Amino acid sequence: MRLGAFLYPAGYHVAAWRHPDVPADAGMNFAHYTELARTAERGLFDFLFLPDSSAMRGADMTELSRTAIRYVAQFEPLTLLGALAAVTERIGLTATVSSTYNEPYHTARMVASLDHISGGRAGWNLVTSQNPYEAYNFGLPEHPDHAARYHRAQEFATVVKGLWDTWHDDAWVRDKAAGQYFVPEKVGPLDHRGEHFSVRGPLNMPRSPQGHPVTIQAGSSGPGVDLAGATADVVFTAQHRKDDVRAFAEDVRASAEKHGRDPESLQVLAGVFPFVGRTRAEAEEKAERLQDLIEPAVGLSLLASELGHVDLSGCDLDGPLPELPPSNSGQSRRDLVVRMAADENLSIRQLYKRVAGSRGHRQVVGTAASIADELEDWFGSGLVDGFIVMPPSLPGGLDDFVDLVLPELRRRGLFRTAYEGRTLRDHLGLERPSR
Amino acid sequence: MRLGAFLYPAGYHVAAWRHPDVPADAGMNFAHYTELARTAERGLFDFLFLPDSSAMRGADMTELSRTAIRYVAQFEPLTLLGALAAVTERIGLTATVSSTYNEPYHTARMVASLDHISGGRAGWNLVTSQNPYEAYNFGLPEHPDHAARYHRAQEFATVVKGLWDTWHDDAWVRDKAAGQYFVPEKVGPLDHRGEHFSVRGPLNMPRSPQGHPVTIQAGSSGPGVDLAGATADVVFTAQHRKDDVRAFAEDVRASAEKHGRDPESLQVLAGVFPFVGRTRAEAEEKAERLQDLIEPAVGLSLLASELGHVDLSGCDLDGPLPELPPSNSGQSRRDLVVRMAADENLSIRQLYKRVAGSRGHRQVVGTAASIADELEDWFGSGLVDGFIVMPPSLPGGLDDFVDLVLPELRRRGLFRTAYEGRTLRDHLGLERPSR
Repeated sequence: MRLGAFLYPAGYHVAAWRHPDVPADAGMNFAHYTELARTAERGLFDFLFLPDSSAMRGADMTELSRTAIRYVAQFEPLTLLGALAAVTERIGLTATVSSTYNEPYHTARMVASLDHISGGRAGWNLVTSQNPYEAYNFGLPEHPDHAARYHRAQEFATVVKGLWDTWHDDAWVRDKAAGQYFVPEKVGPLDHRGEHFSVRGPLNMPRSPQGHPVTIQAGSSGPGVDLAGATADVVFTAQHRKDDVRAFAEDVRASAEKHGRDPESLQVLAGVFPFVGRTRAEAEEKAERLQDLIEPAVGLSLLASELGHVDLSGCDLDGPLPELPPSNSGQSRRDLVVRMAADENLSIRQLYKRVAGSRGHRQVVGTAASIADELEDWFGSGLVDGFIVMPPSLPGGLDDFVDLVLPELRRRGLFRTAYEGRTLRDHLGLERPSR
Repeated sequence: MRLGAFLYPAGYHVAAWRHPDVPADAGMNFAHYTELARTAERGLFDFLFLPDSSAMRGADMTELSRTAIRYVAQFEPLTLLGALAAVTERIGLTATVSSTYNEPYHTARMVASLDHISGGRAGWNLVTSQNPYEAYNFGLPEHPDHAARYHRAQEFATVVKGLWDTWHDDAWVRDKAAGQYFVPEKVGPLDHRGEHFSVRGPLNMPRSPQGHPVTIQAGSSGPGVDLAGATADVVFTAQHRKDDVRAFAEDVRASAEKHGRDPESLQVLAGVFPFVGRTRAEAEEKAERLQDLIEPAVGLSLLASELGHVDLSGCDLDGPLPELPPSNSGQSRRDLVVRMAADENLSIRQLYKRVAGSRGHRQVVGTAASIADELEDWFGSGLVDGFIVMPPSLPGGLDDFVDLVLPELRRRGLFRTAYEGRTLRDHLGLERPSR
């Protein structure tokens, strides 16, 4: 079983920052991140995963001022991963990078640099920006539409991976006596000329320890599945129904095959949002404690944001979700939330309480044994290769998982008892791509 | 006296990588950088300084393959500084960032993030790209001209500093009981609309420990001095003549005054390229040892690059420098090298030997006492506020400076005996800018 640790600074729950055991300044507290990284490494997680956005997610400062998870105050993730590389030894280090507002040369260089610094532990979560407010920080009058973003993302990935392959692995002879630093025949330009990018290369850096740092992809719309099939080593998906995750995994593997790749080389990881207790009652109490900290206005505003920045003011909180206008934000997340409301016949209030916590990811509440049962149910039947664990609050939620659930998974022979390899690809059982 | 440590990975001398005591893979060796950073911190340097470029500096792979300093293989500096922040405690951490091929929002965010991670130790060296080969990695058919680059740099600095000021320092109440994370009235947009950039802001991060991370500027041309006067906290200059450094410091302070700033708040630091021995003969021997490792073709190619990528093939190595065609690369460096050749009546061969080492910076060769005399000569007479030390080879050149020269400077009361403050601004005696 593969496991990633998803680190929103205070935890994934919208009210986590208000929890008494959470440092209120979590997003800008390096000691907090150091503790989290070391706990995850002690638990032998495959990797850390950092979400990101280059703008606050919203424009109403009063609304935003009552939340901590809408990218109001977090470290920039690539500088943070550099620092975390120096305080850890084995765990993989991954961060979200938007293809919409970055240059592929810079991204290729920074992620490869992290791979070198960390001895082969870097990965990037290739996304198209879901946050429409980013556009205004990069000179655009509005957020590009969904299709245009995915089109750019495909070309972005092609350029980044092409740059990673501009050097042969054995180019660097560094022969002091002969004065030969590298072999000139072992490097070539990229000479990419496409619709969005024109990049000559080569990258001014040796091929990295992993050859290609691990590519994660998280979109579940049609273009997202196509992008994942073309580019991803790891697919991260929000699913809460067994049928859906089976269908999704089939789609994404079929997409990989269509792109000429081995479908079994893709690792499908489902998000899981766990409340762990020594008893079921204790777990439920932990969940209730966070739910009680949600203010209705904050819950409603988060729900509106998850649905694509729609306007829900004026709706009856105890009535159903109205028909929604089209949106240019993340499609798959929106569809998931709408389906969840319909499936479970949830009122707006009930729905924002669900969204405030798991936001469409699978919520598991119980003891180590019951949670291990639930994970084994999906993993053992081959639906997924593992999970990305999204602790509701931090550091407590991660401690609980590491101290209670992981020993149970190990007892069942489902999770490693030691790191066997040195690189993130080693942990994930992925081959180092040849050039 | 302020001191920065300039870290080309193998050392500043073009042949440093061939020195037997230098790790040949220095540019991609994190343990090497950790050692350098800790040595500089043990020496109580104000800051580390990392040069950078987003392309190899040149296009002829055979030429490049015989050098290690032309950005063929170095870590990306912001990820590296993240990692170095975690292995040091007090020393300032600065890196070169090009305003020509970056987005100001990303730069503002990354440098502020480093300032938060490091507890207020970050700085950036704001440059316009000198390396014309970068253009091809960012979709441009050719390098923008000198005036356009400086124009963009001015606006770039305005946006970056504006973003750093979008939050009040006291915005972050993080009141768990009241559910108030920040005070919405204590943040505003930037709403910058200029010729090159349109950036709404605010930055999605609190104002950083230093308010403004330290801005370094290194151009010495007319537009460079204007940019420094407008934006720089620290000016880094290549000068080898006392009259020139005096005139330069006067120019830059006059420029600051013109921009409505206190001219004494600018710190002028001159580059110094030291060979330190226990005797003068030992120092000269160290210099000679590196000079002997320069191949003529490598020296000539470096000289051509420093002069703006001119063609020197066919020139008599023992004759004078010919008249040069115009160039769109760094102006001030080119002028400096041309003047050095004329002043000292150097042949091309003699000139490339000078350039291969100090590249126009002031070279000092001798004992700790004689080098301290030379530094005191400039510092004591008020010409400069300090120096950026460019060790010829690493780690040896830095060890020599820390173990031999710094104790002598301390004996003379010229350099600190302990860090007194916590931030880079503290070290440099610069006030934290109010918003």
